[in-house]
Amino acid sequence: MGSSVWGRCLLSGTLAARDSNQQPSDYEDLGGLSPPQRNWKGIAIALLVILVVCSLITMSVIILTPGKNPSGKQRNLVCQHSFTNLVLLGAPKHIFESMKIPDHLQNCFNKYDSSFFLPPCSYFTFVLFMNCLPLEVWELNPPEVQDAVLQFADWGVQGQQLIYIFENNIYYRSDVRSNSLRLTSSGKEEIVFNGIADWLYEEEILKSHKAHWWSPDGEMLAFLLINDTLVPNMALPQFTGATYPKGKSYPYPKAGQPNPIVRLFVVNLYGPTHTQELMLPDSLKLREHYVVMVKWISNTHTAVRWLNRTQNVSILTVCDATVGVCVKKYEETSELWLSKQEQEPIFTRDSSTFFLTVPVKQGGQGEFHHIAMVTKQPRNDQARVQLTSGNWEVTRVLAYDESDQLLYFLSTEGSPQKRHLHRSVSTLGLSPPRCLTCTLSSERGTFYDATMSPDTQHVILKSRGMSLFIHPSTFRYIHYQSRLLHCNERCVLTLTVLSCSDESPGGQSVSDEFSLDWDSVLVSAHDVIVARMDGRGSGYRGQRVLQDIHPHLGHLEVQDHITALHMLKLKYIDRTRIGVYGKGYGGYIALMMLKSTDRMISCAAAQSPIVDWKLYDSFFAERYLGMPSNNDNRYQLSSVLPISKGLQDMKLLLIHGTADAKVHFQHSAELIKHLIHLGANYTMQMYPDEGHYLSERSQQHLSQALVGFFQECLHPCVSALSNEEDEDE
Amino acid sequence: MGSSVWGRCLLSGTLAARDSNQQPSDYEDLGGLSPPQRNWKGIAIALLVILVVCSLITMSVIILTPGKNPSGKQRNLVCQHSFTNLVLLGAPKHIFESMKIPDHLQNCFNKYDSSFFLPPCSYFTFVLFMNCLPLEVWELNPPEVQDAVLQFADWGVQGQQLIYIFENNIYYRSDVRSNSLRLTSSGKEEIVFNGIADWLYEEEILKSHKAHWWSPDGEMLAFLLINDTLVPNMALPQFTGATYPKGKSYPYPKAGQPNPIVRLFVVNLYGPTHTQELMLPDSLKLREHYVVMVKWISNTHTAVRWLNRTQNVSILTVCDATVGVCVKKYEETSELWLSKQEQEPIFTRDSSTFFLTVPVKQGGQGEFHHIAMVTKQPRNDQARVQLTSGNWEVTRVLAYDESDQLLYFLSTEGSPQKRHLHRSVSTLGLSPPRCLTCTLSSERGTFYDATMSPDTQHVILKSRGMSLFIHPSTFRYIHYQSRLLHCNERCVLTLTVLSCSDESPGGQSVSDEFSLDWDSVLVSAHDVIVARMDGRGSGYRGQRVLQDIHPHLGHLEVQDHITALHMLKLKYIDRTRIGVYGKGYGGYIALMMLKSTDRMISCAAAQSPIVDWKLYDSFFAERYLGMPSNNDNRYQLSSVLPISKGLQDMKLLLIHGTADAKVHFQHSAELIKHLIHLGANYTMQMYPDEGHYLSERSQQHLSQALVGFFQECLHPCVSALSNEEDEDE
Repeated sequence: MGSSVWGRCLLSGTLAARDSNQQPSDYEDLGGLSPPQRNWKGIAIALLVILVVCSLITMSVIILTPGKNPSGKQRNLVCQHSFTNLVLLGAPKHIFESMKIPDHLQNCFNKYDSSFFLPPCSYFTFVLFMNCLPLEVWELNPPEVQDAVLQFADWGVQGQQLIYIFENNIYYRSDVRSNSLRLTSSGKEEIVFNGIADWLYEEEILKSHKAHWWSPDGEMLAFLLINDTLVPNMALPQFTGATYPKGKSYPYPKAGQPNPIVRLFVVNLYGPTHTQELMLPDSLKLREHYVVMVKWISNTHTAVRWLNRTQNVSILTVCDATVGVCVKKYEETSELWLSKQEQEPIFTRDSSTFFLTVPVKQGGQGEFHHIAMVTKQPRNDQARVQLTSGNWEVTRVLAYDESDQLLYFLSTEGSPQKRHLHRSVSTLGLSPPRCLTCTLSSERGTFYDATMSPDTQHVILKSRGMSLFIHPSTFRYIHYQSRLLHCNERCVLTLTVLSCSDESPGGQSVSDEFSLDWDSVLVSAHDVIVARMDGRGSGYRGQRVLQDIHPHLGHLEVQDHITALHMLKLKYIDRTRIGVYGKGYGGYIALMMLKSTDRMISCAAAQSPIVDWKLYDSFFAERYLGMPSNNDNRYQLSSVLPISKGLQDMKLLLIHGTADAKVHFQHSAELIKHLIHLGANYTMQMYPDEGHYLSERSQQHLSQALVGFFQECLHPCVSALSNEEDEDE
Repeated sequence: MGSSVWGRCLLSGTLAARDSNQQPSDYEDLGGLSPPQRNWKGIAIALLVILVVCSLITMSVIILTPGKNPSGKQRNLVCQHSFTNLVLLGAPKHIFESMKIPDHLQNCFNKYDSSFFLPPCSYFTFVLFMNCLPLEVWELNPPEVQDAVLQFADWGVQGQQLIYIFENNIYYRSDVRSNSLRLTSSGKEEIVFNGIADWLYEEEILKSHKAHWWSPDGEMLAFLLINDTLVPNMALPQFTGATYPKGKSYPYPKAGQPNPIVRLFVVNLYGPTHTQELMLPDSLKLREHYVVMVKWISNTHTAVRWLNRTQNVSILTVCDATVGVCVKKYEETSELWLSKQEQEPIFTRDSSTFFLTVPVKQGGQGEFHHIAMVTKQPRNDQARVQLTSGNWEVTRVLAYDESDQLLYFLSTEGSPQKRHLHRSVSTLGLSPPRCLTCTLSSERGTFYDATMSPDTQHVILKSRGMSLFIHPSTFRYIHYQSRLLHCNERCVLTLTVLSCSDESPGGQSVSDEFSLDWDSVLVSAHDVIVARMDGRGSGYRGQRVLQDIHPHLGHLEVQDHITALHMLKLKYIDRTRIGVYGKGYGGYIALMMLKSTDRMISCAAAQSPIVDWKLYDSFFAERYLGMPSNNDNRYQLSSVLPISKGLQDMKLLLIHGTADAKVHFQHSAELIKHLIHLGANYTMQMYPDEGHYLSERSQQHLSQALVGFFQECLHPCVSALSNEEDEDE
């Protein structure tokens, strides 16, 4: 059942196996030193010990898994031991993901991941666990709260520091045995958030539920106070699981609606606690703004990036956490919108110099993201030196080796589809960087991610490229990019699905990164080719390609997709049988393609499609379209509705979870109402009480449904029945 | 667009035209007297006047239709004139329907009905209107309420009496110009209802929003006080129409949940108002109960029927409204459940005798509903005389002519599919009744409804039979009833849809009543036959057929449907292509058929299906299955879930309005979750924010979708593609 998912699972297994097999060679000495000899016997013993420990954890987890607590009270258990890994039973997944688990234990944890960490309901009785016997148990419940749900719990960075959050307030213990200290009191359920993110910050800005950051010595904690008092609430219905199911509401600022108000504080935990607000730059004081990045650069200083609501002015400051003063270090402005605002700059130890990527003009080819070195000058001025250049992009700065003045980063040099690890010498200015992974055998792939050791002497390389695992000839994907068609000779086929992924502007569909999904099944088992393309609006090919879509959404992207289809049609495929699929932003693009064409597409599937940008969140929609009150026609021109073209003689499948907190079911509902009004056909795969990211079981179901839908819809069916009228009627 | 609906509209036109054409002959003298001569010139002039008046109404309605009220305040207008018909602009449809509009004006009002009376939002600015120029305007808003929505308004029975309801409280004016009098003060939105029904009473018991009754002289008003304080609320989500749509909640007692508590009051409007509660019979005083029928039989006395919650004890009382005392006149009990509890007995003028239908044993054939005459005897005893008998049923007692002792009624004598008007002489006891419509030419049909004039000297006959309008040979319906197959010779065809209507136990699918729906289109235009059948559990064929389904639901009904299909399969149809459709209870039966068969059905469409009786309303579910706490396994055995058989290799289409207040979307959602869990296929036609009865536009859309679904699903499709694997892979 669900062969595509089976395929993906199989692949994960392969990946893990290869990772552990290749670990020795992956830890290659990039500085030219020979690798140290491995103690294989020791490794084997260590693995055995780990296996035994894992078994013990499994056993204790199973034995101690609480059933339904008869008293109905939450029990929160903490168990402490010298070994610093945690097991969180029944915890929300994001808490699990926020923990740092050594790679060699990942396999062990993955077991729990599938069996324990994905309960259908994400808030359960909550247990902090460690591999220790016998157990010592502490209650976490602070006296101030009754029957509240634990929202977050984690160790600090030093000793047995413990932080946890109840009712949007932060609690702290300097030691597991010490008393709890309440660090904030303004928290209010779904209104004022301390140390954890509201929906907008979690989903769009921080990409994490966690909104607090430890100083390296664990003596200070920076945290956001997010006030959603003015943000309107969106209702999510509940349909199942009870005789009288109750929905819930949560603050969700739609385009042009009041935004959360954010403030950044640092609490000093050493001695009597003292809370200090970090003051935002004067130029943003009277303007609505976001805090988009917080990073400690020393025990007393933190780098903070502030962004105005329009997202075209960004200020990077360094703040003295003891007095709350923030000094501007770098300012970015743009006529359109700023990208990569979440990136963390790399500072030298004395904080005098930092590295980050900024858009740099490359002759007539527009701007590309390259590394700038910013150095403190007398009179608090900054000097900026450009370290890389070319019509390619630096995707991430990894580390700076101060002793040798070496800078490590990932980039698209060579091809926007690839990611290779590079090294530059910072003192040499615009010297060509040396590619460290390009010479690895092609079997190891061309799409890398990397994690540097703190001393920058070692790196863990993760190959995410497809060539490692599956030979490309088994795929008939067409990757289409920038009007350049890549197609092996075997792809002269009869049907095509054009697949628009969830990638919003700045994202990328066509890369050497491996992916396996339901459409791979379609490609492998049926006479279908699948095309993915990056047109204007896509990332990693410079600011011009990205920002060309201004001032609308959905126009040039769609035009590029249609051009690609036309090229494909001429060469390879049956023009009467073309399908399109997309999710989220991709669902929007799929629907905009219908709107822009007539009878070109015979089958369309749109999953959680965005139908009207006025109904989508402020941070995303306003970045491209501004405030609706000022530029109403941009919203109107970018909207799927009204739609009338493209709907004739075609089949439309809509897919949506009814509890989608990101793209509300509202979007599909408005579309359906419009389709009913037009008398247009549609069918639906609805996932009751599921969100934007479907449960594993539902994703399996959907994969099968999508394969079935396209298979049947693109299938030429000749009627065996004659529709003759009876003559005697 | 929507040819089935077009067909239905055309038919209404035909019906109306025939009605007015046939009016003279329909007013046939049933007593044998010759009909009076018509003044044709007078009638023509009258019709002309009516036409002019209608035009004036139309004009004034159009001119005076208020736009968006800028102040946001409700404006409620009353206009009075000697002509006693109302126009309610933008009123909820049920208010319109509760009005008595003379038949000769129906056409005129129908125009408004389609253009004004079905606004997408049912509560608008509310205007009471009459065909008068110039207008006089009175505000209805009582001083006690602010910005409340008018829930009900109607004239009384005498002069310019006016009753209206705000915030669940009744207000009264003896004259349009007089002051408003508040008759109740206990009303509380969605909690305590005075004079209007809560959901349960409106949908299941009274079948009307109105829960008050005028005495014939207009000096007293009986009304229900329905207290829903203890009834749990069900949430209905809202998806469209606003940036942040808000759902609503309303009290809905599911099986076994607390029911509304009902009390019956009479308020004396003559002189100082005085409110008197009518006391229920002692035997029901400590038991939960319903008030199922209220009918004034004189200016001071009212007949009331009380039913216990289990619905197996019913007491008909006559209450003296001046003192509140109710005297038992007739008691019905049953081991299973009582049916036809809503019927109004016909009383003689002195209230000493009344007629009603009761189940009577007919030898070995079980009980059938026949007319009993109940007469007051000395010492307050009642004597019951049976006036009709036989293995057929009296469906409605129409009137009693006291002077000639003649009783008029409709019955199924001759065939359960027919309804003819009969007359009996009450003094003759079990004399065979005389059929008054059987001798009408067959073109006029065999399924009649009738309205008697108050003096019982005239009757308006409405023929609802199909033979009047469409010749049966154009249809290929198979009506299947009681294992008797009716099929003309031309129905040897290839596909079959079995259509299960919304009829719950006691209803009837197979009758001579005309109906035209989407399945008629399927039958007329495609090579499909449609079968409808009444098995055990259906009505009009005696209590034994009806009550045979005890103690479960969905077992014997399904068994009978399957037997019918087997018989059909042998004779006429392709056994690999059988479909089934049903709505509401029919949707339940359709799903139960899947559950009970394996690969028998290839296409199933279930609209608003009931999936779990525990989630359905108390009045309906408990009638057949009792309280869930006592008989849990009956609910379980009658539930669609879990379902696993019958889902393989078949296509399932679910149809549901998300704001269905009768069969909650919850039912489909629970089913879908289960299907996803099983990995079974389904598709959906969802109607956002629509209820159990779809809007006209959505019904059109659905009709087309259903025709398309069955056409495609039952269509034999031979693949033109070979699925050969590439040999070199």
